Amino acid sequence: MPRLSSALAAELAGTAHALADAARPETMRHFRIGTAAYNKRADGFDPVTEGDRAAERAMRAVLAIRRPDDAILGEEFGASAGSTGLTWVLDPIDGTRAYLAGAPSWGVLVAVSDADGPILGLIDQPHIQERFYGGPDGARYTGPTGARDIRVAPDRPLSDAILMTTVPEVGTAAERDAFARVSAEVRLTRYGLDCYAYALLAMGQVDLVIEAGLQPYDIQGPMAVIHAAGGIVTDWTGGPARDGGRVIAASGPALHRAAMAHLAGE
Amino acid sequence: MPRLSSALAAELAGTAHALADAARPETMRHFRIGTAAYNKRADGFDPVTEGDRAAERAMRAVLAIRRPDDAILGEEFGASAGSTGLTWVLDPIDGTRAYLAGAPSWGVLVAVSDADGPILGLIDQPHIQERFYGGPDGARYTGPTGARDIRVAPDRPLSDAILMTTVPEVGTAAERDAFARVSAEVRLTRYGLDCYAYALLAMGQVDLVIEAGLQPYDIQGPMAVIHAAGGIVTDWTGGPARDGGRVIAASGPALHRAAMAHLAGE
Repeated sequence: MPRLSSALAAELAGTAHALADAARPETMRHFRIGTAAYNKRADGFDPVTEGDRAAERAMRAVLAIRRPDDAILGEEFGASAGSTGLTWVLDPIDGTRAYLAGAPSWGVLVAVSDADGPILGLIDQPHIQERFYGGPDGARYTGPTGARDIRVAPDRPLSDAILMTTVPEVGTAAERDAFARVSAEVRLTRYGLDCYAYALLAMGQVDLVIEAGLQPYDIQGPMAVIHAAGGIVTDWTGGPARDGGRVIAASGPALHRAAMAHLAGE
Repeated sequence: MPRLSSALAAELAGTAHALADAARPETMRHFRIGTAAYNKRADGFDPVTEGDRAAERAMRAVLAIRRPDDAILGEEFGASAGSTGLTWVLDPIDGTRAYLAGAPSWGVLVAVSDADGPILGLIDQPHIQERFYGGPDGARYTGPTGARDIRVAPDRPLSDAILMTTVPEVGTAAERDAFARVSAEVRLTRYGLDCYAYALLAMGQVDLVIEAGLQPYDIQGPMAVIHAAGGIVTDWTGGPARDGGRVIAASGPALHRAAMAHLAGE
């Protein structure tokens, strides 16, 4: 299903990489500066950092030059209209709590989407210097151990699966209970990895990621990568995940169905 | 308190780094090879990998040449007697479940200890190529962003603290409840980082780490790093932590006391 010409696809992929390149130094400038970042806040804990805003500004500056007619939806500065039918969906720092704690599980998320959802996108981890890209031209990892194509793990029974989510509470009490029903069936459940969990799924190390309360900019970049790597991303009932909310990502269809059945309490 | 000559301290520090250098390629050889590692095991989930054993063998080979008369306590191959009063305490892969899932929160832990506990040690993360060292000559970070001395965060109230542990269950039901009493008081609780949580505490990004069910080789390397960085590591009652079990690490004494009071149910 060619949704766009190969020339446009290459231009969009190049722009996505340019956005992540522009965000890297901005996020790293404020990473691991000690606990001053949160200690100064008298008005309660707010993990939105200077790095978050600076990185989105840097990405918007690249788009203003390379793709001025596309729309933008950014976590920090909201929506800007466009005229091409394409929207850049940007989360400058997904996992701000991990970022504040100095843990390298946060990432820069970029997707470019049309009315049907993400066309291509990436997850970038600036500290480790790792990037997980997915688009019409495939899914690819670049990092300290080199570059290679990536693919999700083979489909497998729930009882063999590794499951990840960010926080044990998951979301509401009902959402936590639904997650617990799946967790009770899997081989191993791990917590705390933010967007990095989706990257591990795309590279075949993790089989399931289940979260709730997501925003569109939390999931569209990971969706693009996981789709290109052969995986599945939907809401908890099998519907579209591009608007966020309750999201399940799985390496294969049997695993996806089995996990959704437990989420639904069947 | 000079427990050893500066010449011996330098020799031991050099050996600790040589051990971590020897372990790196052995652990990385089997990292992120996909899910084959756990899928092949018909007899249930056992996260002890080939990488674990190969890394400890490589470290023991270094010790046989550089420090043949020291004792060794290793996670994989147990205890070997020595005649110097010094023991090398080795965990070739701390965080084997993270390792299997492809997450970079596992590490190689090295300490050299006498009867009073760790003299010096390190936490090494081979994938990110980060090392956190602590000994009589100070506490130091080396990684992709360069090298620098590290120090724990300033002492602060429990209500301002970031708390970490590896799994939400922590240990027994009583241990989980004790942890929950502390977690209810802090600013932020994060899960899933294995030994990397202690590294983040030593570099001033995290204020508290609380765990249970540890082995001596799980904690002696992190203890050396945190002590050198100005922090505190004890058991949950303020006693020595070098034998593992229930461990609390804190950036400062007021925070340490406040957290222990909640662990005790006061």
